Amino acid sequence: MTSERRKAGLAIFGLGRAGRIHLANILSLRKAHLRYIVEENLQHGQAVAREYMVNDDVKVISSKDADQVFNDSNVDGIVICTPTDLHENLVRRGLKSDKAVFCEKPIAGTKENVAACYADAEKYGQPLLCAFNRRFDPSISLMRQRLAEGAIGELQCIKTCSRDAPFPPKEYLRISGGIFHDCGVHDIDAICWTIGEYPVSVFTQAHAFHKEIADLNDVDQVIIVMKFPSGCIASIDLSRHAVYGYDQRMEIFGSNGMLEQQNKVPTSVVCHGVLGACKNPIEASFPQRYREAYELELEHFVNVILGIEKEILVKKEETLQVCRLASACEESYRTGKQIFMSSFENGANH
Amino acid sequence: MTSERRKAGLAIFGLGRAGRIHLANILSLRKAHLRYIVEENLQHGQAVAREYMVNDDVKVISSKDADQVFNDSNVDGIVICTPTDLHENLVRRGLKSDKAVFCEKPIAGTKENVAACYADAEKYGQPLLCAFNRRFDPSISLMRQRLAEGAIGELQCIKTCSRDAPFPPKEYLRISGGIFHDCGVHDIDAICWTIGEYPVSVFTQAHAFHKEIADLNDVDQVIIVMKFPSGCIASIDLSRHAVYGYDQRMEIFGSNGMLEQQNKVPTSVVCHGVLGACKNPIEASFPQRYREAYELELEHFVNVILGIEKEILVKKEETLQVCRLASACEESYRTGKQIFMSSFENGANH
Amino acid sequence: MTSERRKAGLAIFGLGRAGRIHLANILSLRKAHLRYIVEENLQHGQAVAREYMVNDDVKVISSKDADQVFNDSNVDGIVICTPTDLHENLVRRGLKSDKAVFCEKPIAGTKENVAACYADAEKYGQPLLCAFNRRFDPSISLMRQRLAEGAIGELQCIKTCSRDAPFPPKEYLRISGGIFHDCGVHDIDAICWTIGEYPVSVFTQAHAFHKEIADLNDVDQVIIVMKFPSGCIASIDLSRHAVYGYDQRMEIFGSNGMLEQQNKVPTSVVCHGVLGACKNPIEASFPQRYREAYELELEHFVNVILGIEKEILVKKEETLQVCRLASACEESYRTGKQIFMSSFENGANH
Amino acid sequence: MTSERRKAGLAIFGLGRAGRIHLANILSLRKAHLRYIVEENLQHGQAVAREYMVNDDVKVISSKDADQVFNDSNVDGIVICTPTDLHENLVRRGLKSDKAVFCEKPIAGTKENVAACYADAEKYGQPLLCAFNRRFDPSISLMRQRLAEGAIGELQCIKTCSRDAPFPPKEYLRISGGIFHDCGVHDIDAICWTIGEYPVSVFTQAHAFHKEIADLNDVDQVIIVMKFPSGCIASIDLSRHAVYGYDQRMEIFGSNGMLEQQNKVPTSVVCHGVLGACKNPIEASFPQRYREAYELELEHFVNVILGIEKEILVKKEETLQVCRLASACEESYRTGKQIFMSSFENGANH
Repeated sequence: MTSERRKAGLAIFGLGRAGRIHLANILSLRKAHLRYIVEENLQHGQAVAREYMVNDDVKVISSKDADQVFNDSNVDGIVICTPTDLHENLVRRGLKSDKAVFCEKPIAGTKENVAACYADAEKYGQPLLCAFNRRFDPSISLMRQRLAEGAIGELQCIKTCSRDAPFPPKEYLRISGGIFHDCGVHDIDAICWTIGEYPVSVFTQAHAFHKEIADLNDVDQVIIVMKFPSGCIASIDLSRHAVYGYDQRMEIFGSNGMLEQQNKVPTSVVCHGVLGACKNPIEASFPQRYREAYELELEHFVNVILGIEKEILVKKEETLQVCRLASACEESYRTGKQIFMSSFENGANH
Repeated sequence: MTSERRKAGLAIFGLGRAGRIHLANILSLRKAHLRYIVEENLQHGQAVAREYMVNDDVKVISSKDADQVFNDSNVDGIVICTPTDLHENLVRRGLKSDKAVFCEKPIAGTKENVAACYADAEKYGQPLLCAFNRRFDPSISLMRQRLAEGAIGELQCIKTCSRDAPFPPKEYLRISGGIFHDCGVHDIDAICWTIGEYPVSVFTQAHAFHKEIADLNDVDQVIIVMKFPSGCIASIDLSRHAVYGYDQRMEIFGSNGMLEQQNKVPTSVVCHGVLGACKNPIEASFPQRYREAYELELEHFVNVILGIEKEILVKKEETLQVCRLASACEESYRTGKQIFMSSFENGANH
Repeated sequence: MTSERRKAGLAIFGLGRAGRIHLANILSLRKAHLRYIVEENLQHGQAVAREYMVNDDVKVISSKDADQVFNDSNVDGIVICTPTDLHENLVRRGLKSDKAVFCEKPIAGTKENVAACYADAEKYGQPLLCAFNRRFDPSISLMRQRLAEGAIGELQCIKTCSRDAPFPPKEYLRISGGIFHDCGVHDIDAICWTIGEYPVSVFTQAHAFHKEIADLNDVDQVIIVMKFPSGCIASIDLSRHAVYGYDQRMEIFGSNGMLEQQNKVPTSVVCHGVLGACKNPIEASFPQRYREAYELELEHFVNVILGIEKEILVKKEETLQVCRLASACEESYRTGKQIFMSSFENGANH
Repeated sequence: MTSERRKAGLAIFGLGRAGRIHLANILSLRKAHLRYIVEENLQHGQAVAREYMVNDDVKVISSKDADQVFNDSNVDGIVICTPTDLHENLVRRGLKSDKAVFCEKPIAGTKENVAACYADAEKYGQPLLCAFNRRFDPSISLMRQRLAEGAIGELQCIKTCSRDAPFPPKEYLRISGGIFHDCGVHDIDAICWTIGEYPVSVFTQAHAFHKEIADLNDVDQVIIVMKFPSGCIASIDLSRHAVYGYDQRMEIFGSNGMLEQQNKVPTSVVCHGVLGACKNPIEASFPQRYREAYELELEHFVNVILGIEKEILVKKEETLQVCRLASACEESYRTGKQIFMSSFENGANH
């Protein structure tokens, strides 16, 4: 009985790609007790519940009955994985009902609305976690730690390369918010978090190689360059599609060495033949590559609910900065100009 | 309710090193419902239950009350992780009570008693799984699959290297059964299972570099050579202690190529400095290296209970062969002679 | 006698860092017969000649007696490794005397003078080789070949990373021409040659972390972004100093895969210890990393002299384009703006 | 003139596979002056001389005129690369004529005759170098040095894997002396030299997978196990044919770590596609893999002639031990028994 009471009661909203990842992690996390699954399509919700063998005490309900969740004092936190346009409303209802809130990015559609969500979090004294999953990746965390320990001396350059796999479906591309806000934010956040600075200027070069992406006025190959107050220069290389798997790398160069975060591989098997030595493809996509990150991210959320950790790792100012920077990168691409963040701040460009 | 009924009811015996690994995996496996924890030291059992936040409906009982488990029809299978000398008794009581049985190796102390356990399994129509965890490792499985697919042509040579880390505690060494039966069996099984043959002869060379091991009349560095009916030659390199982590590799050479199973690393970070490029140490020990194998092994056991898989992957004949081979390897080391398995069969040497 | 006559007679000017590399390669190349060593400091020339055990028939002369070389019909080609400011004069004297000319970059101080040298080459019908050594590197050549063969489908992105080691001496930095013309040209040439296009625009971000470089109004960390007519985007990452060795990598990304040119290592030894697995440092500096490139470059020059190859691999237009691009990159850094090459052509900026 | 006189005058006997490697290295080595090429087939000798553009002052002569070489005081050393059966005679004539002698292994057909050659070397005070080329490989040298420095603590195990490529021609196999004396000697020497000990016992398991090799009563897949006085155990894995290139690896395990000497690759290019990441094949065969070793081996020989190095690196006792061990390994395979070297010494088995 004692042990049960110490578990964090959770509800999950939405069972799409991300939702199913989080559902599985909630069910495996011994510190969490799933109370509700909320799905717009109730039948889908029930089918997934059966597939994942959720216990009988978990209520599978329709979105229109979501009030049950907000009124249930056994629910300590909610995990929001619905389509993007529903995020803000659920975040604010959750906070208002004194629930901790975990939300896939973006928390809301505009910088102002994101700020409003954080204002609510402060008002109701509840943690609000914007799910920048890469911060929880053991390899990226280790890069940050080694840099902080001085392993490579004075920071001079940081680079990420993030290439999606497989190619996203058309329907997703239409609602993705564009490569800068859908993909770029992760790299921007990972870089700024790792080095502990925000850039003074950004420049972006980009191209659309895929017709379906060009048709959406979006791009699929991007290089972003950022300059930081310390002098450090960052570059980000984004692509919507790598055929060889989900390519996710980071490199940090300093006066005393270099840190490299290479790709993960699913097995350690190499086959040597007349054509050479072939390793298996790298991890296929984000659920595999960031499996541990997703687990640790959810555990962090539950730890904060249970008081095991004191603070949410992703801060308000960080989320807002990343939001602004993604917009500035897009602006740089549209205008062909370097964007200085101080003037961008004043609303000069956006 | 329906979902609950489809889960496999389990009891676990023993919460030592292996027991805690299996406990965590049972708790994470959605297809399993843990019913009992059985521990000789009840206080320890209760403490671990709290630490692992097991649900309130799990009964934590003392070994002397184990009958409860065998009489409970909600228990479909038992997982035995007690000290070795208790294995056989629990295996046979489990089978007799119509429970599926999962048992850490060795199932029993002698080849004859192992055979008796399997006879019971047949008699009562219950699955008996001897936990050769490496068979469930995705990398080793892939090696076997690639070989079977003909990726490297005709098999000519197979080698494993297995070095323990960290150095085992004195108390463990005393009851380990010696390096041949404690460590060698895993490599012997992995090789024979991968290539689908049993050797016609074995030769062993060995040495004790650690005084505490020499004092036990055991050895800590071993090379085993085996010859197979197909002409294939195998070598096994065992050590009780690698300071750089749990070193576990396999290599298969054939007429058309080579398959290599390299070590796993916990992160993909490399640090480049004046001394060169340093990767983090490989996985520290067996719980990390074979994490997926332990998960998949338990899932396999549950799948067999639930009828999702039809057959236990580790067959009676295989367990008995591995047992004989480990003894023959030790015999070869003691006598300095090559042991031919056909004469060993006839009891000539043992 | 026959064999002697088929060898290419060569003279080398200057025995600094590059000169000594080329001297050694000339002496090892069986197709070449060294006739003259020309050095401003005759004593240094004689000492090096002794150290390299050049044969007695090689004349070691002072720069002021260089006419001997130009008047000697046994000299088929000259190899110019003097300080930069002497290049143009020697190139033009060599061509005028009907010698083939191999010259370290830059051939001359301005774009116009470079063009004038090439005009002489055409006028006198002699080959003029600007020594972009990376084109002769087997790994970079293989990248270009694989791309051309379609190994990775449609080209989308190309990146190089070039970090110098060790830190250049102050005297060298003062006459180096700045990082864009000293280092950047190699990456610009390697990229344009590999993909067979010249960019439509460039953008540069840079910083000086080393005071001695800032004092020269130069920079030591640079990121260049280039956009190509095909849509391909390139990035170049330059640094004046990597403590872990001469870091030289290239990556090409396409619709069907990625090509990666990793660093070279002097030995294949890895040391596994408690801190992990450490490879030796990568090649220490350019003489080691590009050893084969230097050999093949000289052999190419001799092959053209002997008629074994018909055309000099580095074309006039290529040298001029790289020259313009390095200036445009520097301009972009100075102005903070993206430079469009069409307007740069018209002299708008320079 | 002075420089010429300090060069070592050399003659080379035989222009087969090894001969052409050594010829090229002599021509590139500035410290050496080639005086004679001696070939049984004079026409072949002249053709190779033209192909390699040897200078006009090199005399190309027939074997029957070899006395010219032995009588010429400008010849300081001879390099013997003829068929094996001619080795001993040339070695002894060379030594008797006061020439330093470099000879491909084996120096002579029997252990006794090898000893007689070394006796001559002592008698005439001339260096005799048995060409165990692996000792000069920078990677293997570094392994030995690191071990000696204590990088991995107390030695416990050493392993080599040596697989030939391509498959040797039938004519070569017939005169090769068998895999133990043709291939095994290199691994035996590399191991004993690296660790500085000779084994107390050997055991061999082997098989012939290739019919043409079985027909010669030879084998093509071999595992050798050796036990050393220190307790160290060695294993050697030999194969006559790896399709993926010339596979040459060494691993040394100790109480404080592991040293690994991996394969060399001709370029550092990796191609990532849907099938995974493919490195180019490793070095194709011995001339590529041991290119530096061959160069350094010849330079060592010349250094000894010139007095730059004092002692021949391969000692008489070492050559004789390796010879005995190769015979003992073969004996172990033929008898199926472990061979103890002390009794083998007494002529018990051979």
